[in-house]
Amino acid sequence: MAEPEWESLEQCLEKHLPPTDLREVKRLLYGKETRKLDLPSQALECAAEGDFELQGYAFEAAEEQLRGPRTVRVGLVQNRIPLPAEAPVAKQVSALHRRIEAIVEVAAMCGVNIICFQEAWTMPFAFCTREKLPWTEFAESAEDGPTTRFCQKLAKKHNMVVVSPILERDGAHGDVLWNTAVVISNSGAVLGKTRKNHIPRVGDFNERVHVADRGQERGHRQPLLHLRHQPRGQAHKDFGYFYGSSYVAAPDSSRTPGLSRTRDGLLVAELNLNLCRQVNDVWNFKMTGRYDMYARELAEAVQPDYRPHIVRE
Amino acid sequence: MAEPEWESLEQCLEKHLPPTDLREVKRLLYGKETRKLDLPSQALECAAEGDFELQGYAFEAAEEQLRGPRTVRVGLVQNRIPLPAEAPVAKQVSALHRRIEAIVEVAAMCGVNIICFQEAWTMPFAFCTREKLPWTEFAESAEDGPTTRFCQKLAKKHNMVVVSPILERDGAHGDVLWNTAVVISNSGAVLGKTRKNHIPRVGDFNERVHVADRGQERGHRQPLLHLRHQPRGQAHKDFGYFYGSSYVAAPDSSRTPGLSRTRDGLLVAELNLNLCRQVNDVWNFKMTGRYDMYARELAEAVQPDYRPHIVRE
Repeated sequence: MAEPEWESLEQCLEKHLPPTDLREVKRLLYGKETRKLDLPSQALECAAEGDFELQGYAFEAAEEQLRGPRTVRVGLVQNRIPLPAEAPVAKQVSALHRRIEAIVEVAAMCGVNIICFQEAWTMPFAFCTREKLPWTEFAESAEDGPTTRFCQKLAKKHNMVVVSPILERDGAHGDVLWNTAVVISNSGAVLGKTRKNHIPRVGDFNERVHVADRGQERGHRQPLLHLRHQPRGQAHKDFGYFYGSSYVAAPDSSRTPGLSRTRDGLLVAELNLNLCRQVNDVWNFKMTGRYDMYARELAEAVQPDYRPHIVRE
Repeated sequence: MAEPEWESLEQCLEKHLPPTDLREVKRLLYGKETRKLDLPSQALECAAEGDFELQGYAFEAAEEQLRGPRTVRVGLVQNRIPLPAEAPVAKQVSALHRRIEAIVEVAAMCGVNIICFQEAWTMPFAFCTREKLPWTEFAESAEDGPTTRFCQKLAKKHNMVVVSPILERDGAHGDVLWNTAVVISNSGAVLGKTRKNHIPRVGDFNERVHVADRGQERGHRQPLLHLRHQPRGQAHKDFGYFYGSSYVAAPDSSRTPGLSRTRDGLLVAELNLNLCRQVNDVWNFKMTGRYDMYARELAEAVQPDYRPHIVRE
């Protein structure tokens, strides 16, 4: 476990490495350098007052002749729980709503088009416990629960798409629980949802106690976003810091630095969606890949009577 | 491109970071620390005389009650071409055989059980060129070409399994070329071969000019090895250093440091194969994963009339 003052890998490298070495190390670890965004001073002031980190980076794509740049700003939020995990459920949820509301105000100042909250953002990260209550009380309807309604208001107010990962309670199918990301359009409409379909079980960390994983529903896929979002709420004292830190990665394998591992934060990333097809055309994986063979081999490998091919002398 | 004196990421971090920061950075980048192997002094002297790097690390597994440790030492070789790429083909190949022979002597001193050479190790790394001759003359039969016969002698002499990746010429099927790894048992028998089945095409870097990729043959799979081996020969002046550097990664996501990006080298890694099932049992991916669903979805996605599901308002 890092010492309390250890904020992030980047800060450590920046503190100790001479500039030329730092440039080479960053090139190896992060790929092509992302440009720092010039964010409005009002946003930076609000973030400082609200005690959260604010960083912004841009991924750039080559200029094309027939398509203009298709620029989108994505915001990633990471946050601790404002109230202790022992507080009443409704109070915890509304404290989180208020905290997120303040961070989204700053995202709006930064011109964010799509805002993404962390996994199960309305609750302490409780998947590592085996208690059922009160954690299951944090589950809500993805279509019209209080958190979705809250996000719909945010979406309309700021003309922003909201990706809102919650613990879902599916009343139509026997009240089962899902680990679900709800996607709300900038119009305020619920566009769809995606359910986590592989729920890991690692030691005492057992999402399976709470969450069904019988398969993603068709017709509820999340729109394409090139994101990785890993922070976790600080539910238990012994959990310590965030599990990882938020960053954005692009299809050319470059990535932004990460937010702090200890503080709340908002990471703004400007993407030019043209980069997707540009990288595709350079690497051609979809043209050269053997997806038909992989589909066939995987279909064989999941058969109950499958035997791996092992050569013995 | 790094400056000439820039040997590796690890050396740079070790030079500049204070010990506690170094430990935390290494934990984040490399996972659980690997133990340095105590290699015989004779081996270290021979490596110094032969002007190649020698490093050794051990991955450890927990002790089990019913199984003893199953320890294997793997050696990874990375090497430049000893002669210029313009030299006669036969001379280049035999110079490479001699160079590798010397490195394998040192591997034997270090108790290596499985030795792995780099991709297309008997030739300059020519896949980035479009010329056909003389590169195609480096292709050999996987079953009884001069390089396989050379490796069979090495295997018997040192009681060592040899993984020998070559450019294969398949005379039985119209003289096609393959990017193939030949696996030779410690008895000297050719156990099998595995052919690279996804040949990328990236800009001017076009393996497809040389190498067929119509599918891996069944019955010729490589035995399970948890390795990544990335170095490339230094075929052209403008290529500069190795493309990456050799390292070994374990199923618990720990990895060894990498060899130098500029020098020939031998990396010895001691593995306890018990770690595979131990990690498996902790993460349970094969128990919790939805491979049946992935097989079904991938089979759908490769259909010519497949349409991705995109929700529009």
